[in-house]
Amino acid sequence: MKIAFLGLGQMGEPMAGHLLGAGHTLTVFNRTAAKAEKLRAAGAQVASTVTEAVAGAEAAITMLADDAAVEDVAWGGGERSAASSGSGLLKALPPGATHISMSTISVALVDRLARAHSDCGQAFVSAPVFGRPEAAAARKLWVLAGGEPSAITKVRPLLEAMGQGVLTVGDEPSSAKAVKIAGNFTIAAALETLSEAYALVSAYGIQSKMFLDIINRLFQSPVYQGYGTMIAERKFEPAGFTLRLGLKDARLVWQTADRGEVAMPLASLIHDRMLAAVAAGHGEKDWSSFASVELNKS
Amino acid sequence: MKIAFLGLGQMGEPMAGHLLGAGHTLTVFNRTAAKAEKLRAAGAQVASTVTEAVAGAEAAITMLADDAAVEDVAWGGGERSAASSGSGLLKALPPGATHISMSTISVALVDRLARAHSDCGQAFVSAPVFGRPEAAAARKLWVLAGGEPSAITKVRPLLEAMGQGVLTVGDEPSSAKAVKIAGNFTIAAALETLSEAYALVSAYGIQSKMFLDIINRLFQSPVYQGYGTMIAERKFEPAGFTLRLGLKDARLVWQTADRGEVAMPLASLIHDRMLAAVAAGHGEKDWSSFASVELNKS
Amino acid sequence: MKIAFLGLGQMGEPMAGHLLGAGHTLTVFNRTAAKAEKLRAAGAQVASTVTEAVAGAEAAITMLADDAAVEDVAWGGGERSAASSGSGLLKALPPGATHISMSTISVALVDRLARAHSDCGQAFVSAPVFGRPEAAAARKLWVLAGGEPSAITKVRPLLEAMGQGVLTVGDEPSSAKAVKIAGNFTIAAALETLSEAYALVSAYGIQSKMFLDIINRLFQSPVYQGYGTMIAERKFEPAGFTLRLGLKDARLVWQTADRGEVAMPLASLIHDRMLAAVAAGHGEKDWSSFASVELNKS
Amino acid sequence: MKIAFLGLGQMGEPMAGHLLGAGHTLTVFNRTAAKAEKLRAAGAQVASTVTEAVAGAEAAITMLADDAAVEDVAWGGGERSAASSGSGLLKALPPGATHISMSTISVALVDRLARAHSDCGQAFVSAPVFGRPEAAAARKLWVLAGGEPSAITKVRPLLEAMGQGVLTVGDEPSSAKAVKIAGNFTIAAALETLSEAYALVSAYGIQSKMFLDIINRLFQSPVYQGYGTMIAERKFEPAGFTLRLGLKDARLVWQTADRGEVAMPLASLIHDRMLAAVAAGHGEKDWSSFASVELNKS
Repeated sequence: MKIAFLGLGQMGEPMAGHLLGAGHTLTVFNRTAAKAEKLRAAGAQVASTVTEAVAGAEAAITMLADDAAVEDVAWGGGERSAASSGSGLLKALPPGATHISMSTISVALVDRLARAHSDCGQAFVSAPVFGRPEAAAARKLWVLAGGEPSAITKVRPLLEAMGQGVLTVGDEPSSAKAVKIAGNFTIAAALETLSEAYALVSAYGIQSKMFLDIINRLFQSPVYQGYGTMIAERKFEPAGFTLRLGLKDARLVWQTADRGEVAMPLASLIHDRMLAAVAAGHGEKDWSSFASVELNKS
Repeated sequence: MKIAFLGLGQMGEPMAGHLLGAGHTLTVFNRTAAKAEKLRAAGAQVASTVTEAVAGAEAAITMLADDAAVEDVAWGGGERSAASSGSGLLKALPPGATHISMSTISVALVDRLARAHSDCGQAFVSAPVFGRPEAAAARKLWVLAGGEPSAITKVRPLLEAMGQGVLTVGDEPSSAKAVKIAGNFTIAAALETLSEAYALVSAYGIQSKMFLDIINRLFQSPVYQGYGTMIAERKFEPAGFTLRLGLKDARLVWQTADRGEVAMPLASLIHDRMLAAVAAGHGEKDWSSFASVELNKS
Repeated sequence: MKIAFLGLGQMGEPMAGHLLGAGHTLTVFNRTAAKAEKLRAAGAQVASTVTEAVAGAEAAITMLADDAAVEDVAWGGGERSAASSGSGLLKALPPGATHISMSTISVALVDRLARAHSDCGQAFVSAPVFGRPEAAAARKLWVLAGGEPSAITKVRPLLEAMGQGVLTVGDEPSSAKAVKIAGNFTIAAALETLSEAYALVSAYGIQSKMFLDIINRLFQSPVYQGYGTMIAERKFEPAGFTLRLGLKDARLVWQTADRGEVAMPLASLIHDRMLAAVAAGHGEKDWSSFASVELNKS
Repeated sequence: MKIAFLGLGQMGEPMAGHLLGAGHTLTVFNRTAAKAEKLRAAGAQVASTVTEAVAGAEAAITMLADDAAVEDVAWGGGERSAASSGSGLLKALPPGATHISMSTISVALVDRLARAHSDCGQAFVSAPVFGRPEAAAARKLWVLAGGEPSAITKVRPLLEAMGQGVLTVGDEPSSAKAVKIAGNFTIAAALETLSEAYALVSAYGIQSKMFLDIINRLFQSPVYQGYGTMIAERKFEPAGFTLRLGLKDARLVWQTADRGEVAMPLASLIHDRMLAAVAAGHGEKDWSSFASVELNKS
């Protein structure tokens, strides 16, 4: 298939590489052009604008940082309100083609995109992923898929090329984002849990690692083992995923819950702890640190 | 070894059975005598008082409901303050023998017991367990051990006979209880997490079981799988472990944290949710229900 | 002065009336035209579009429900992104005139409006109010004012005509909204406080009103007296200010705190309680009910 | 009346002084005898034991630090369990006399005292007070009274001599303590509220004092004015009432709520914040600081 890939960050770059490896024709675009060089060497075309990238594409994949970045690409850069300006994905993607949104963005934006693509005669699939950059590189991501079954079927081979499995969630694109956001919440909740438990046992003279070793018998989970070790060792730098991005996700949880009229007190607690940690200057540490760092403003 | 076993509830009875099975000489005591019949048939002596049960024992094991029950047994029934009355374990257990406290009780009481046994020339080991009645029956409990190394060594064969492994925690008996209490907290936190996540995705049309199926790829944990299924199916009766007992444990977490000067906002959240659920009449349901039940007082 | 008044709800209508009473020339606009009839009878012009209302005005006052309504009026109705369409306040208000935003809206929108008006050569003053409809009618509102001192000075007589006093907050329009939003939070916090305290004493057989009578000796505050009586009597209908609107304000608190990187756990608690109460069907009750209603979904 | 007064702290000493001033015959007792000298000079007898103090008294007043201190005095010092030892108030107070418990203690202990005094043929009145040491000195305390009406009537003149008014709460002694504890909670909640609101507005460039000046128009309360000024000025030393004692009260709120099966999320939040502040070394500052101090452990 002829594919446009927009956004070559720590996640996007290896994901695009897997598509090339699976034999697809790829045009890539990134705001910072230098990041495209490795993919160019591997056979990708490099576009200098969104319009150029998606011209003639059967599918356009976005893997961008946040709502604002996706809005820029979709409706055209600069003044975000200028839907009419013609420089965005919505305008340039051929009718019948599919936009696959893989970024972690708000369900509100997903709903807006779904309507806009429908208006433009394009298909829209929401396909957020679970996994960190190492998993993206190793093709170990789990890919969620939300959207009309026929649209998902058409792009399924692309999704399969980027991860270890595709999990179809529902007919609404927003459903896949909601699952992704809720999944992130469950991980963040495990971080809060481990941090509080470590603090408790340490007040009684017990090392965090010994405690982890014990509860590993109960949980037997790579999430507890992996993050539990990081927190016990206080290895928060360099960050695999920054607290600042973790806070962004916590905001998405809050917004998704608020929009769905679901009270989530634990999600609120996590947001507030992350916010306090970022305000105290820990935003560039690994997000697993959020409930373990000191809250003195420097 | 000659052992006294005090407390034959859902946990204590199978645990005592394993000791018999391992060839130890056992005298049992339970407030409700009828519960001892099965063990009598299996070869245990049945005592009608605590004093009688522990007379001549090398080790006395307590597996009782709560602080109050352990205090009754330790210092003698009736007026709890009458330490001098002579009807309790502290008075009747031979010097040099060991009290193994396996109940989930407060660290404050553990500290008091440790001092009192030391005053009486007896050893004291704290050995709480992880696992529900099925695990006790199947000898799948994990046994924690806190206390002087020599004391633990002496009773280690008993502890091994009751579970799948013994995890030595520290020299202070209270350390083992703190680990047990913190471990319970981590499980309760997973229940809160799953309940909130289910509520969130269901607002976007996603079935809890589908969500669980997806996050199982991340967590790969029997705790999430097991409790996640119970909560998704809302199978809260009959209770494996009642919410009323879960609330008791949540109180222990709070007290342990308060005593250790450790702020645990998630533990407070869980306590408050359990309290509200019990107040609304759900105390006899399974504790996994605490964040999913309705809060209308009937 | 020649004034346009946009938004004739329970608050706007009496406020516009006071301006007429003070001798100003008034043109009013409301989406539902019928609401303008009383003011027409009192001497106001009634416009049928925003453009018509603000043409030739020295000041335009907006008193609207929420961010969306203010965006519609500012940038023109329909497709909110069409800033260029020419039907909004920004386009139609004469250069040199002042937009006085009195609605409770987000600081993010206030910042956007401040920039946009500056671009159009217009002044912008943020002037939210404290007080309910009765206070608006009785000219007992407190009016906050944020913006450039010269701009505030010019419109001060208008602000004074609508309330019992004008409190200048700062040079940034957003500062006045932040104070308004924080003020709302303090009231909501008093509601949560009273509800929890009543629940506590009632478990010990004490009537809420007796408790209120006692703590009134400490607080001596009309807020505690007024809301305390409503909650004690459970007089939640008809609503003076609905829970649905209270939730909107709680969202503003959250957004303002999040934007300012200030963790506010009590504000989060209040938001979550309000959200749960609205989800359980209490949205049209008075907002003072939020921590006292049952959470059974019907 | 012939009165024994036990506990001459910052509160007890001036309260005892007012009783002397009202013409009663007073015998005082304090663990640290030196504190009694001023009262001796004013005409009080000074006893060296509890037994001596209450011998022949018509009423014995306790104004002590916490549950443990009251238990010591009631059941006799040293080994608290030795109710039988004869050195406590319960043993030494004449039948028919009244114990007036004015300390802020747990409702659980109040219930135990009520039963114990009844068993000993003595009356028991619970009479906690609202007010700080300055109020005690100025006879501005509010005195709550719980207990049998006839018992309250008998000691009412004493209560009136110590404050500006007596508020009868209910027939159960515990009811007065519950009201006192709930009242303390409402004050602590106002501290949390003010601290969060100040943090919010300061992120938008607004001085705390300006904000306080504005919300004073709404609340018009000496509580907000007084504490609001302290927090705005960060005048936390010397402490009028230490954070360590505030935490003790927060624990009482938690225990009272837990016992009454009332979930109080705001009370939990306050407890956790106070605990964190004490753990970070702020225990000797004024309690109004609890939500405003930094949480770095030194």
